[in-house]
Amino acid sequence: MSARNFVKFTFIKVQPAWRRRPAPERDRDKREFAAACRTFGEDHYLRAYSLVGTRGDVDLMVRAVSPSLEPIHELHVLLNQTGLMSWADIPYSYLAMTKPSAYSDEPTPLAPRPGADASHLIVYPMWKRREWYLLPAEERMRIMRGHIDVGRRHASIDINTAYSYGLDDQEFVVSFDADDPGEFLDLVHELRGTESSSYTLSETPIFTCISASIERVLGALDGEVVREEMADQLTVDS
Amino acid sequence: MSARNFVKFTFIKVQPAWRRRPAPERDRDKREFAAACRTFGEDHYLRAYSLVGTRGDVDLMVRAVSPSLEPIHELHVLLNQTGLMSWADIPYSYLAMTKPSAYSDEPTPLAPRPGADASHLIVYPMWKRREWYLLPAEERMRIMRGHIDVGRRHASIDINTAYSYGLDDQEFVVSFDADDPGEFLDLVHELRGTESSSYTLSETPIFTCISASIERVLGALDGEVVREEMADQLTVDS
Amino acid sequence: MSARNFVKFTFIKVQPAWRRRPAPERDRDKREFAAACRTFGEDHYLRAYSLVGTRGDVDLMVRAVSPSLEPIHELHVLLNQTGLMSWADIPYSYLAMTKPSAYSDEPTPLAPRPGADASHLIVYPMWKRREWYLLPAEERMRIMRGHIDVGRRHASIDINTAYSYGLDDQEFVVSFDADDPGEFLDLVHELRGTESSSYTLSETPIFTCISASIERVLGALDGEVVREEMADQLTVDS
Amino acid sequence: MSARNFVKFTFIKVQPAWRRRPAPERDRDKREFAAACRTFGEDHYLRAYSLVGTRGDVDLMVRAVSPSLEPIHELHVLLNQTGLMSWADIPYSYLAMTKPSAYSDEPTPLAPRPGADASHLIVYPMWKRREWYLLPAEERMRIMRGHIDVGRRHASIDINTAYSYGLDDQEFVVSFDADDPGEFLDLVHELRGTESSSYTLSETPIFTCISASIERVLGALDGEVVREEMADQLTVDS
Amino acid sequence: MSARNFVKFTFIKVQPAWRRRPAPERDRDKREFAAACRTFGEDHYLRAYSLVGTRGDVDLMVRAVSPSLEPIHELHVLLNQTGLMSWADIPYSYLAMTKPSAYSDEPTPLAPRPGADASHLIVYPMWKRREWYLLPAEERMRIMRGHIDVGRRHASIDINTAYSYGLDDQEFVVSFDADDPGEFLDLVHELRGTESSSYTLSETPIFTCISASIERVLGALDGEVVREEMADQLTVDS
Repeated sequence: MSARNFVKFTFIKVQPAWRRRPAPERDRDKREFAAACRTFGEDHYLRAYSLVGTRGDVDLMVRAVSPSLEPIHELHVLLNQTGLMSWADIPYSYLAMTKPSAYSDEPTPLAPRPGADASHLIVYPMWKRREWYLLPAEERMRIMRGHIDVGRRHASIDINTAYSYGLDDQEFVVSFDADDPGEFLDLVHELRGTESSSYTLSETPIFTCISASIERVLGALDGEVVREEMADQLTVDS
Repeated sequence: MSARNFVKFTFIKVQPAWRRRPAPERDRDKREFAAACRTFGEDHYLRAYSLVGTRGDVDLMVRAVSPSLEPIHELHVLLNQTGLMSWADIPYSYLAMTKPSAYSDEPTPLAPRPGADASHLIVYPMWKRREWYLLPAEERMRIMRGHIDVGRRHASIDINTAYSYGLDDQEFVVSFDADDPGEFLDLVHELRGTESSSYTLSETPIFTCISASIERVLGALDGEVVREEMADQLTVDS
Repeated sequence: MSARNFVKFTFIKVQPAWRRRPAPERDRDKREFAAACRTFGEDHYLRAYSLVGTRGDVDLMVRAVSPSLEPIHELHVLLNQTGLMSWADIPYSYLAMTKPSAYSDEPTPLAPRPGADASHLIVYPMWKRREWYLLPAEERMRIMRGHIDVGRRHASIDINTAYSYGLDDQEFVVSFDADDPGEFLDLVHELRGTESSSYTLSETPIFTCISASIERVLGALDGEVVREEMADQLTVDS
Repeated sequence: MSARNFVKFTFIKVQPAWRRRPAPERDRDKREFAAACRTFGEDHYLRAYSLVGTRGDVDLMVRAVSPSLEPIHELHVLLNQTGLMSWADIPYSYLAMTKPSAYSDEPTPLAPRPGADASHLIVYPMWKRREWYLLPAEERMRIMRGHIDVGRRHASIDINTAYSYGLDDQEFVVSFDADDPGEFLDLVHELRGTESSSYTLSETPIFTCISASIERVLGALDGEVVREEMADQLTVDS
Repeated sequence: MSARNFVKFTFIKVQPAWRRRPAPERDRDKREFAAACRTFGEDHYLRAYSLVGTRGDVDLMVRAVSPSLEPIHELHVLLNQTGLMSWADIPYSYLAMTKPSAYSDEPTPLAPRPGADASHLIVYPMWKRREWYLLPAEERMRIMRGHIDVGRRHASIDINTAYSYGLDDQEFVVSFDADDPGEFLDLVHELRGTESSSYTLSETPIFTCISASIERVLGALDGEVVREEMADQLTVDS
């Protein structure tokens, strides 16, 4: 069995004034940011996503995975050295950890699956009602099976559950690899009718993230699109 | 049947300091913004609205429709290139998708209807109580009919429902074409007495948007009204 | 019967840095703002209020009335042209409309009453619980009579109710002309014991506004009190 | 019986950038602020408090009392003339009025008591549940007696209740003179077990304020402590 | 028995623009901040923590303990003298006090235990439901025992409870020394199933804090890591 992993979702919003900086300085700011991601990516899993056009309160998201907390801390120290972070805020930040699921009869992946990347990652923090935790184990199992059955009818959607109890504000960070956001919408609409849905306390904000290389994600900040071939070459991966 | 479409509502607030910039620079900022809208509008549906005088937290809204997410992302990358967005924030942003209605016996329009434009568009995000989703289908149908019947008594008001389950924080984005906001007020007041109303969890904020060409909408930001004839000529449409 | 009217309450907060501008520039900023109000006031009802000393989050409020939305939009475009609004935000904004009351046996004034101005205007947005709207009409009438009876015992307080269903976040904007805020406090305290009070969902924020000419209201922003005689002469009215 | 009084609590947060101003300018900013307080204090009750070290969102609080609203308005106009308020915000502001208590069998003080000043003033806004107001008067009396009895066991703590119904967001502003914050903690802990406690809707934020002369309170903003003897001499009082 | 102590948790967020200052000025800003901590630490307990990489809304936390409030006030006056605090905000601040526990049969430590420091401190404010306080004492004792039993199964986690009734917004500030955040996650997950959990009203935000010398904590702000040997030498302690 692979080890449990810390998962960190860092959502970044660039201050509008950053776009008034001269192009060469913006280029340097972005190169520094990409370099910090690449350094972490040499030994760890890192993915970048653009939220330009899907949200108004964040521009990009970095998803970093590590078996211990230190490399995640160090990644953010490195980011703090970049010019971009002297013009940016982190409006949302989710720290979580993988853990075997109590409900699924399939083994829970404790690390990102190779090839699971889809064109979109949909992410949200989740809290369940306290009543949920006082139900008998079999009852919770029965209710979760209904939930899982609906998910199976949308096999193109891959779910990743991470746990934040005591580490961060939310209880879970749930993320979904989806090539077709419209199918994900249909799945979530169907789930509203399941019993498990009534035990959800909160599952917002919901982030529809567009998967891309860190260079393309940074390029979307000020509209200077990175050339496709270069982007492919620079994809950061473990 | 026409295809489902993504609908994006981007609400923009210009920083007060932008109004201290010299007039020629503000003109350029606005021209760049209008050009980005026109580029998208060549192949897609785009409408602009002013909220100057109806809200205090936003100045303008851009409503963009596309069968896939990419062009909406690209529109916002283009907007990020404009001078205006280096002095502006996006306090509200709603991403949604059209979907056939389960309740109406009329075909649901999945794309904007030609000629539906009215002088005002009223927009709000909506959430229903979870209890709603656990009602039997016939019960939900019965309750929605009561709701729809009230709407039919105000035939001058056109409703557009879009769905956000899993794509964004809200469940729906509802928008109404209305030439007479006072009649819309009467309609919403009447709906308070319907059974469906008690299943609404939240339907704020509510935005009363004034329909205009993108040039007039931008002109309202700093009071330099675009000349009428020019505005007409530049209306952006698909 | 007079026509229904739109009523707009615009609450403005000047950025602290504005007070660091040289006095002549602050004077010009204020003159421009007063001129915009006077232009609207030539044909419409407009009143200005100071909140310096009663709230910390707003400095002044402009209350504008018009039978259609366009002049209110134009007033705010004019305000956007003034220097003051390049150093100011609008933390609260309420759009509403007059409508005959279903409960009072006195005719509802649909426009401001001449001579109703008192030294203070107390304003708040209000929402009722959804249960209220499902009560039978006679029941609602009975409950509202109890509410109205308490109000009649404080005859010096004049109430103005405006409706925002579907136009803005709140359901009502309620405002009271009161020369003695202490008597209003007693009235609201008494109302807590009425049945109608338990159907209130929210009635905050509450703004105690000091009535004054627009010049005096602007003077209170930076402590340069406008001379009394000039203030009287410049009172804006329809 | 003394007259009812308005009580105003103004909580001020200095912008961090103010601390980058040259020392002589900060001195002038503080002298202007102190002078405005002294002017009001010539005829009225005014106290100043530091929150440096007890809260992160405010630095100082000014508590001003007057039988009419005008002098409180004028005090804040004077403050708006000071350099300090061009670098400061008012994150919290509570307007209230004294009123005889319906529950205590001791006469309610309607003005600050001479000699009541303690080393700390603890202040919070309060709202009761609407159910409270529908209880019969004797029932409310009985419940409040239990509350008052607990208070009497902590005789070193002096309570001041002011009423905000209809004047400001909260229903009450409660403040306590306490030389020993630890004893106040014990009192509030004990009150949790009283019946009255279950009728409290909200009683936050809670401000632990350190009583000092206005000069010392201002000195704590940037660490330039005013000399003790000067502070004593400048204490503002009515 | 040792005396009760005030405990102060001050969470600091450096403005992004601070990172644009020249390195020598950032160095001076950090040295001043460290010196203020050391001055307090000569006579009192002080610990520093980094939140770089675990949260987005704060960068560092200072935890200061003192039997009276004055030294804590003075520490923050000293911090206000530092260059760093002219570029920083305090988004979260918790004031609390130690007190013997009513439930545990072990003596409650009223001051930090020597050697309790772990690599991480997890901190959150907590509120219980008002129903809790109306339960009979034996019932509360029974429920808390269940809670304590779960805690004992995770003996490597040390809990510190401090009380804020009437001193600050929350009722408690709970903090945990943990070398393995993953074990703390498992503990909190287990606690969800205990009866005591259903009496929790709120226990967010949750801060996972990385323990380090004040120099290393400051170094993480802009990525200039303090040399290890120097950090050890400068650890601040009582």
